[in-house]
Amino acid sequence: MRSLVLIGHGSHLNGESAGAVYRYAELLRARGLYDEVVEGYWKEEPSLRQVLRTTRSTDVTVIPMFISEGYFTETVIPRELGLGHQGPVPEGGVARVLGGKTVRYTLPYGVHPGMADVILARAREVLPDLSAQDTALIVLGHGTTRNENSNRVIYCNAEQLRASGHFAEVHALFLDEDPKVGTWPEVVRSPRVVVVPFFASEGWHTLETIPEDMGLTGEVTVFPENPHGPQTVYYARPVGTHASVADVILHLAEEARGASERGGDEDRTHAEAWAAFLALARQGTRVGEALITPHGGLFEIRHALDEGRPSDDLTTVVTPEGLRDLTRRDEGGHHRPVHTFRTLPRGWRAVLSEADLPRGMHSLYPAVVEESYAHQTHTLRATPWPTTARRQTGIYTKVQRATPEQVEAVSREVCSRCLKTRLWAGEKLPLTFFAGVPGAIPCPEACTYFIAEVREEVSGKRGQETVSGE
Amino acid sequence: MRSLVLIGHGSHLNGESAGAVYRYAELLRARGLYDEVVEGYWKEEPSLRQVLRTTRSTDVTVIPMFISEGYFTETVIPRELGLGHQGPVPEGGVARVLGGKTVRYTLPYGVHPGMADVILARAREVLPDLSAQDTALIVLGHGTTRNENSNRVIYCNAEQLRASGHFAEVHALFLDEDPKVGTWPEVVRSPRVVVVPFFASEGWHTLETIPEDMGLTGEVTVFPENPHGPQTVYYARPVGTHASVADVILHLAEEARGASERGGDEDRTHAEAWAAFLALARQGTRVGEALITPHGGLFEIRHALDEGRPSDDLTTVVTPEGLRDLTRRDEGGHHRPVHTFRTLPRGWRAVLSEADLPRGMHSLYPAVVEESYAHQTHTLRATPWPTTARRQTGIYTKVQRATPEQVEAVSREVCSRCLKTRLWAGEKLPLTFFAGVPGAIPCPEACTYFIAEVREEVSGKRGQETVSGE
Repeated sequence: MRSLVLIGHGSHLNGESAGAVYRYAELLRARGLYDEVVEGYWKEEPSLRQVLRTTRSTDVTVIPMFISEGYFTETVIPRELGLGHQGPVPEGGVARVLGGKTVRYTLPYGVHPGMADVILARAREVLPDLSAQDTALIVLGHGTTRNENSNRVIYCNAEQLRASGHFAEVHALFLDEDPKVGTWPEVVRSPRVVVVPFFASEGWHTLETIPEDMGLTGEVTVFPENPHGPQTVYYARPVGTHASVADVILHLAEEARGASERGGDEDRTHAEAWAAFLALARQGTRVGEALITPHGGLFEIRHALDEGRPSDDLTTVVTPEGLRDLTRRDEGGHHRPVHTFRTLPRGWRAVLSEADLPRGMHSLYPAVVEESYAHQTHTLRATPWPTTARRQTGIYTKVQRATPEQVEAVSREVCSRCLKTRLWAGEKLPLTFFAGVPGAIPCPEACTYFIAEVREEVSGKRGQETVSGE
Repeated sequence: MRSLVLIGHGSHLNGESAGAVYRYAELLRARGLYDEVVEGYWKEEPSLRQVLRTTRSTDVTVIPMFISEGYFTETVIPRELGLGHQGPVPEGGVARVLGGKTVRYTLPYGVHPGMADVILARAREVLPDLSAQDTALIVLGHGTTRNENSNRVIYCNAEQLRASGHFAEVHALFLDEDPKVGTWPEVVRSPRVVVVPFFASEGWHTLETIPEDMGLTGEVTVFPENPHGPQTVYYARPVGTHASVADVILHLAEEARGASERGGDEDRTHAEAWAAFLALARQGTRVGEALITPHGGLFEIRHALDEGRPSDDLTTVVTPEGLRDLTRRDEGGHHRPVHTFRTLPRGWRAVLSEADLPRGMHSLYPAVVEESYAHQTHTLRATPWPTTARRQTGIYTKVQRATPEQVEAVSREVCSRCLKTRLWAGEKLPLTFFAGVPGAIPCPEACTYFIAEVREEVSGKRGQETVSGE
């Protein structure tokens, strides 16, 4: 039995941020090569601190869904997963045994050699008859002085594609370092030029900066009077959103040190937690704001406030993904980075098979079944705020300066909107929903949403509508 | 059977604003002269639009809990109650038959001649041995050029107390008009001076402005070298918070035109609604976020998320007032001007007798039983937003300028936090909690909280943390 975990950045503000990870997880589930594909996030749920607990097997491969190596892949993710590793990740990744699970942590997908195929696929999308006679390729990277590796991967891909013989010439150009993208008319000689942005997703750079720096007006732009004669530029979509990234992820996972097809066993604690939950669900139960009702082998989930509403008065979905999409925003349309905020929207029902129920619950209240069961069986360890604060780096280092009063002030605003009981602040929770108290859900550690709010508080900016960084 | 209704201003921001009305309602209930004492508010719940529906009898006397006549007593309250009266209220009040109820609307308590006794009582509190030999009284009013009646009541009280012979001299002085309070050392000759502020409650004026203008340093201040010799000033607390205001209220109510001790009958619709609710409660039910459980003749109310929590893990109260005080603030300590916001705190239980249950529900979800029952029986009329907007005056006149998009934008922020379904915006609600859907509660008309937010939106100020006016 094997678990594949995809780690995304996520966002406290933008509900679309997790979209790419959702999509790859769905593609990989459809391939059926892993017994489960689980998602985890820095700024959404399940968090990096929770995600390993939510995996079903003792063999876990973790893929950072990032386009390049850097602060997140080398510092934040290994630290939050508790890998005991910091810094560059070697070829083949890092393997550890954590809580009885073998956890393999790989390089980010963007540095895998297979990305050359993704670049080629993107190029062919925009210019199907590209040819070695007349077509140049520009692999376009962001470039930065902060991490020397971030340009290396662009050069490697350019080199690999040059060797492939598909193009007359291949160039590596950058937005923020030399050789700059604006120099392309001097550098590139072929009459047809394909530009593939080596970026994780569409965004400000792919939609604004690059077209502006290159003088592009759309997918195809004709330059009649360039130094090397007339040229036509074909602007491809970013590599990071191409479906074939799923293949790269599978390669990364298979090449991880010690990976085997057999994998590990079912995690016993995980199995116990879900068996206990299933027993509960079969009787019908409430968890947080949700009501779960058995229906002849299937399970219906709806908002408990909607109990008794005729089914045809509600939007019905029959997949965990449908449930996820209906509950990602509150009734005012706002992103719900913390699923246990008491803002679960109403007006829907999900009808799920027993096999889909765990993933449905995972969408609704990520990690809640696992953590509540652990609390109920006295194996959930709380992490006090000072420990959480000390661990922070980068822009969050400053939360270490927060006074107890500031932490309490943020709790009053943030945690008062949440179902969970703050074990990390010394609050007691004698029973959980496993013992029949629907609203009783443990919070073993301050979440990143809370940490970000403490940072705002320390900066004197809380309450202002600013986009938080990192 | 007779109902007494006390109307307060209330506040969207300040949880203490309704405190004085709460207290008088409790005092008057204890006297037992009325079958019920109900509270209603401009900016809290039940609103002025709802309060008559919540009264149990067909004989209703409404007392505006204001210290003076003015915009609220002459314009806002009569309009919102639907009295069909605007402008000065005559001696004996205004009487109307509304929805089968006789409704008597009186002058505000502050203009009743009985206030002279309250002034005297306040004076005696601060100087028990006041005497006609050596004691002067200053009745201190706000004074304003906006309403000529507001100084008249001060002069009347001064005149009445002068005639009573308790004081050597009696003066009417004002903060904002002549004769100004700062002139007192020239005007007042007696060695002992009692100052009674004719104000509704302690506040900025009684705590800051008056002491500053008069040079007071505390309850007792000695002025050794005044023009008329040494003087000692005894500063009393404001009249509006004295317990004997309850007597004034009763006098006002008894003197209202057409008032009789027998009063009217039980309101049939009201009785039906509560009989239906009681039947529901006897089976155990959920209403909004609350769970109601019968317990051998008593009823326990708690947050539905707390179902199954051991009782000794919860704060237990046994009165409607206790329930009110536990649910006035959310878990973050914020005032809940709209009780159906989905922020009902957890951690408490109220155990109430059948007789107290209606008042308990009235504290928890004001007017919700009456309005939901009316909706269930097809007698609840929705008021569309344009009608509500057109009715507004004063600083709220500008909500008439709100575009449909602005109204929707405010709904997304405000109404998305509320349990209620906006009938006033055309939303449908086929069933209510009477039919077993806990979260199904009708909203027949935009509340004043919503109106205030629309005003902020139209002013371009919404989202800023400003204290809203009026």
